[in-house]
Amino acid sequence: MGKKKKIKKLREQVKALEAELASATTHTHDVAPLAPKGGFPDMPVIEGVRFAAVQAGVRYKGRYDVMLALCDPGTSIAGVFTRSATRSANVLDCQEKLGSDPSGGAAIIVNSGNSNAFTGRHGEGSVKAICEAVAKITGVPENRVFTSSTGVIGERLPHDRITAKLDALKDALDPGALDLAARAIMTTDTFPKGAVAEVEIGGKTVKIAGIAKGSGMIAPDMATMLVYIFTDAKIAQPDLQSMLGELTNVTFNNITVDSDTSTSDTLLLAATGASGVEVTAKTDAFRTALHDVMLNLAHQVVRDGEGATKFVEVRVTGAASDADARTHALAIANSPLIKTAVAGEDPNWGRVVMAIGKSGAAADRDLITIRFGDILVAEKGWVSPDYREEQGAAYMKNEELVISVDLGLGDGEAVVWTCDLTHGYIQINADYRS
Amino acid sequence: MGKKKKIKKLREQVKALEAELASATTHTHDVAPLAPKGGFPDMPVIEGVRFAAVQAGVRYKGRYDVMLALCDPGTSIAGVFTRSATRSANVLDCQEKLGSDPSGGAAIIVNSGNSNAFTGRHGEGSVKAICEAVAKITGVPENRVFTSSTGVIGERLPHDRITAKLDALKDALDPGALDLAARAIMTTDTFPKGAVAEVEIGGKTVKIAGIAKGSGMIAPDMATMLVYIFTDAKIAQPDLQSMLGELTNVTFNNITVDSDTSTSDTLLLAATGASGVEVTAKTDAFRTALHDVMLNLAHQVVRDGEGATKFVEVRVTGAASDADARTHALAIANSPLIKTAVAGEDPNWGRVVMAIGKSGAAADRDLITIRFGDILVAEKGWVSPDYREEQGAAYMKNEELVISVDLGLGDGEAVVWTCDLTHGYIQINADYRS
Repeated sequence: MGKKKKIKKLREQVKALEAELASATTHTHDVAPLAPKGGFPDMPVIEGVRFAAVQAGVRYKGRYDVMLALCDPGTSIAGVFTRSATRSANVLDCQEKLGSDPSGGAAIIVNSGNSNAFTGRHGEGSVKAICEAVAKITGVPENRVFTSSTGVIGERLPHDRITAKLDALKDALDPGALDLAARAIMTTDTFPKGAVAEVEIGGKTVKIAGIAKGSGMIAPDMATMLVYIFTDAKIAQPDLQSMLGELTNVTFNNITVDSDTSTSDTLLLAATGASGVEVTAKTDAFRTALHDVMLNLAHQVVRDGEGATKFVEVRVTGAASDADARTHALAIANSPLIKTAVAGEDPNWGRVVMAIGKSGAAADRDLITIRFGDILVAEKGWVSPDYREEQGAAYMKNEELVISVDLGLGDGEAVVWTCDLTHGYIQINADYRS
Repeated sequence: MGKKKKIKKLREQVKALEAELASATTHTHDVAPLAPKGGFPDMPVIEGVRFAAVQAGVRYKGRYDVMLALCDPGTSIAGVFTRSATRSANVLDCQEKLGSDPSGGAAIIVNSGNSNAFTGRHGEGSVKAICEAVAKITGVPENRVFTSSTGVIGERLPHDRITAKLDALKDALDPGALDLAARAIMTTDTFPKGAVAEVEIGGKTVKIAGIAKGSGMIAPDMATMLVYIFTDAKIAQPDLQSMLGELTNVTFNNITVDSDTSTSDTLLLAATGASGVEVTAKTDAFRTALHDVMLNLAHQVVRDGEGATKFVEVRVTGAASDADARTHALAIANSPLIKTAVAGEDPNWGRVVMAIGKSGAAADRDLITIRFGDILVAEKGWVSPDYREEQGAAYMKNEELVISVDLGLGDGEAVVWTCDLTHGYIQINADYRS
């Protein structure tokens, strides 16, 4: 057999095997290799909020797909959302409601299976119908009902399937059901995501518990990230909102799987006040604990990145400003050439130079220092004289990698987290939808 | 055999086959499926410039890897270059020399196999050594010698191998050797790229012929795009430069394979004046012919994109401005989710909505119209009532696709060209370098 024929035959075999593999894995949801080793954490009870989940059959039968969180009167709600210009009706509605009077409590209702995105005026109607029904059944004012939807886009949300289950949801409310809620918001996530923290403030304990979903992708939608965090701290909404915004900039805004942004990304943070511990935007202990929970959840989203086999931290220091540092870090983290090199365990530092050069932020070739882990790879505009390719190659075999760049220009710094770009990503996203 | 075991075994089989396939294809350079059907065009003689190519063994033996173009006195040279902050010593040197006195002629010397990028001060020394030697042998002033290098980065350029061949290059100079030059600048290109045009101006014929390389990727470097275009038109350098800049914005600056930018991208345009036909920046016939050559070469670069199986034109109209239109078009063309959907022949218009939303340019969900070819897919914030999924699925099977978006906001428009993101891209770029 000639070489060309052999290659053609091999290609056909690969293609056939890939198809077989795809069909074998479609509904198995193998847990991602980077999933936290300890599994889902034990969730503490957060006084002042109860949870429930039901099987409403929004799209698929036989799985939990709607969750409700009911917060006591006085609960502050802060939120951050996708900046997408085509954001969903749910996101627009949530944004309007932030800061409304907390005296009547609050409800958060989330469905998976249908994202209610790009469904025209119908989408707004569905949000309205759900909020009205939740308000009626729970007694929470309509302007304190927050909704999220994730799943298939461009299809009308069958919101009656959700409202039909509200009685069942109300009956099932339980302070200990946050783990069930974490499962109900999953789409193609391969594992439920939760994180917890406790912090002593003035001799009393404040608790924080959060859940997240992302960044799976299922026929035919886009990777939506949803995050809900609850605490029994007592904190005014403006303080909660400002703290959330700041911490989002160093956690969820610094992760990237594939540089694409969902129309539905939502993070809601509810503070019930039930612990009686008063907190402000300046309470460092609380801020640190909240930061830890947010960063933990953000990392779990990257660890469940489509096809991911490596978790990568990109550290940039010595930039002209923090903004420049972030621009460089994201250019490195989003570069397909770097992400494929990581997948191939190739210590290809030249691609890091390339990404720095293209980012648009200030850089001086001859001042750049690049490290893989602790290994000095390049400095003074060239490969380090002590660097040996074998060192880099051995380092790249690790499951968790740190790529560090110092620009030598100033004090700006940033850290970004990402994963590699593998055949698994192509397979998941090139599969036909139906 | 259990399902998990079966999946594991299939994965191993795919991996083994891929490795076999990779080793079988490494040095065969199968021509890309999107290569122009007609092959390399017949190149006309451009009076006033001669070409030569040699085998200098810069990195590999047994292939042409250095080309020389020698232009007559009076030749205007215009150029556009990568905007990378880490651009190579060659690029910096070329930029300095643009606009220098043309009375002594000009030389362009290009090597493949080593990019001379990120080689510290050594890189500047290599450029200086080559320019001095070329000036000495050809009689062209040193400030009229332009160099490019493409290939492995971070390794010192063995420039003595190039200068050792200058006598042979000079002896081989021939007006008809542009096709050989096109081959000498290839790295992992799967086909040489050339385009030609002739235009009648004032009863006389002006000729344009261009060659390009890109966007292959070879161990261990980055995709560099190099383009050299020659014409016998008589045009002053400032006019040539302004025309080149404008046309680059609607040709080479609007193609994207993977959003990554090389440190070495270079386009040089030489006008010898030998036709005696005087042309200015306002000569529309010449501008159109030059545009056609540039667009043709730009498309060939996309068609040779790593792993590409689909050629995609993204047209955006109705944007608030041309700049906004380009931002939207590039967001669509660079989205990994859209590029994988195209690879999978999935008419996933929801991902187009997502890309518009994330681009940062103005958009109103309810005014967006999306078409695949002539098929109206979405309008008024929702899927079109007449659209049937089967139509979209059938259209996506084409090798050449047009995705059109109208924003409904203004008169801004842009067209961008890209390819799909396939297993081939991952395979090429995740393979280990050495």
